[in-house]
Amino acid sequence: MNVDGQPYRTIWLDDDRASVCVIDQTRLPHRFEVVRWRSVRAAAAGIRTMVVRGAPLIGAAAAYGMALAMQEDSSDENLLLAYDTLFRTRPTAVNLRWALDLMRQTLLPCKSSERTGVAYALAGRIADDDVQNCSAIGDCGQTLIKQVWEKVSGSRPVNILTHCNAGWLATVDWGTALAPIYKAFNAGISLHVWVDETRPRNQGASLTAWELGHHGVPHTVITDNAGGHLMQHGLVDLCIVGSDRTTASGDVANKIGTYLKALAARDNGVPFYVALPLSTIDWTIENGVRDIPIEKRAPEELTHVSGESDDGDVRTVRITPKASAAANYAFDVTPRQLVSALITEHGVFRPVPEEMAQLRNKGERITAEKSGIEKLEFRI
Amino acid sequence: MNVDGQPYRTIWLDDDRASVCVIDQTRLPHRFEVVRWRSVRAAAAGIRTMVVRGAPLIGAAAAYGMALAMQEDSSDENLLLAYDTLFRTRPTAVNLRWALDLMRQTLLPCKSSERTGVAYALAGRIADDDVQNCSAIGDCGQTLIKQVWEKVSGSRPVNILTHCNAGWLATVDWGTALAPIYKAFNAGISLHVWVDETRPRNQGASLTAWELGHHGVPHTVITDNAGGHLMQHGLVDLCIVGSDRTTASGDVANKIGTYLKALAARDNGVPFYVALPLSTIDWTIENGVRDIPIEKRAPEELTHVSGESDDGDVRTVRITPKASAAANYAFDVTPRQLVSALITEHGVFRPVPEEMAQLRNKGERITAEKSGIEKLEFRI
Repeated sequence: MNVDGQPYRTIWLDDDRASVCVIDQTRLPHRFEVVRWRSVRAAAAGIRTMVVRGAPLIGAAAAYGMALAMQEDSSDENLLLAYDTLFRTRPTAVNLRWALDLMRQTLLPCKSSERTGVAYALAGRIADDDVQNCSAIGDCGQTLIKQVWEKVSGSRPVNILTHCNAGWLATVDWGTALAPIYKAFNAGISLHVWVDETRPRNQGASLTAWELGHHGVPHTVITDNAGGHLMQHGLVDLCIVGSDRTTASGDVANKIGTYLKALAARDNGVPFYVALPLSTIDWTIENGVRDIPIEKRAPEELTHVSGESDDGDVRTVRITPKASAAANYAFDVTPRQLVSALITEHGVFRPVPEEMAQLRNKGERITAEKSGIEKLEFRI
Repeated sequence: MNVDGQPYRTIWLDDDRASVCVIDQTRLPHRFEVVRWRSVRAAAAGIRTMVVRGAPLIGAAAAYGMALAMQEDSSDENLLLAYDTLFRTRPTAVNLRWALDLMRQTLLPCKSSERTGVAYALAGRIADDDVQNCSAIGDCGQTLIKQVWEKVSGSRPVNILTHCNAGWLATVDWGTALAPIYKAFNAGISLHVWVDETRPRNQGASLTAWELGHHGVPHTVITDNAGGHLMQHGLVDLCIVGSDRTTASGDVANKIGTYLKALAARDNGVPFYVALPLSTIDWTIENGVRDIPIEKRAPEELTHVSGESDDGDVRTVRITPKASAAANYAFDVTPRQLVSALITEHGVFRPVPEEMAQLRNKGERITAEKSGIEKLEFRI
């Protein structure tokens, strides 16, 4: 999407066709800086320290990390070493493993002399595929925003609430939850986004607000506490959030606090949509509340807050008493009963058994077709 | 309550029987400092800058401010000037007006020479009455905690979730929502409090965590996003929150985010209690969502966060992009259907018409009796 009029992706191959550029997300929203990776070591450090974050972006970054490794030394030994190095950066990220597995299984059968070329091509394909999927999610979700716009006859902006950052910064471009918003905005629909700040890591207040602002989308940051009040007073037309993991039945694990917004949406008759690429659905699990383990992260993410101080430096301050314990649950599960529909790259599906089955069939058919094409192109 | 073993109130008359001591709440949780007011000007500045906050405490502080004014100059002119000065500090606080009106109507008929004595006595009475009311709320609410304790046969601590600060720091002593918790804790019931950090002003993370910790009550700070997840997993036995204003039907205006927790409580069968002194019920309003205006406060409360930095200084940092708008809704309304019961100084009442009528009758009878006693004692 645009940063002050200039189109960007979160990751791209530099003009030298070898080094990899990424937006340093640890510096946002206070600084916009591009970092250049010239080695697998730099890529691994960047993933580990969250210079890049968001499951789809991590997958693309790991793939490019493998390409950088092949350029340095395309031996079997280095290939496997690079896999391990990159895998250990963020062990719980599903897309990281998926991208690394695809790179390894594609590169291992190749001649050493061919690996660098194949690796860059496949990493580029992984990035492009993500852009295509997100763009398709945007196209599918855009119609839901357009329906509201038509209902109010364009008399006022459509108000959309989102939680956390499921924008283009979490992917290669477009985002998931924000893709329908960008598509609708680009199509000239007047809209306004309520941005939950999303404690404890403040991804809404920092990343979502930053990317919407720099693309020119009207938005207002609110506390995570405010959404219910806004919905009670008719100030939200629809909610769109992302998903870290969705079950076969349609239960949605997403950033902590998503469930509370879904409850408020139901209580006030506001549609609650979840945008996700099909790859994040875990077809082996039905009951999300019971079976999805919820990560507890370091309490310091809650007890300490970073921001820009008056002197322009980015500083960290402690907001709780030193003696008080803090618990940092990172995700929660929104039961399918509270989800109006899932917005995927293959269309919009309600989380009811027959539609989930349709989604699964469609996804499997397309994955099989795609896998055939890839096998052909990359000569596996 | 105790601060590291020593009992404190939030406001008290100093040993010189003239100056007034208060805990400086702007310095908490990072510093525990007592401030001494020697003039009405100091008291007014303290209320305005939130050295003291919380409706009941503001009432007592304003009353003591009038006493300080009378000590300086007990003329009619100064009495009315002090009233205006103090009234303008926090114009929306109901208890402020109530305490000032009571002081004025009691002092005006007195001889100038008697006013100082009467003023200190009445301010002391207002403070003591608040302590008595809060203590009674604690006694009434304690039984609800005890019931859970008995149900689990003392096999594990009772888990209570609270939002914002309705503790002793918001009153003269005991608090409202926290009074039942202190009473139960003092009675030997094993309990643990989940403390919502309460964005944007972080009263939970700073004040509630501080006061529970210094009294020795086990507690854990969580983000405002986490309560739903905890309730889904059986980690909350009951919720207790305070109220800024309650309608005749039992709708509750309280700190923004309260409504979301009440929704999660209902969805998971967790009792949701609201603790309040009868004086905060507005019998002229029925429908809280429709008729209670919700204050929007400065966006800087949300965009900027204060805390202690590594060097020990308390600093403020900005967490949002400079170009992003922010909206700061301070309260929301929890509809009575989500409230299990109101815990008052006169007992526990469900927000249904017949019990609200009982509560009203009881309150009116007791207020009439009390007013008779006061008129006698202060010779109005």
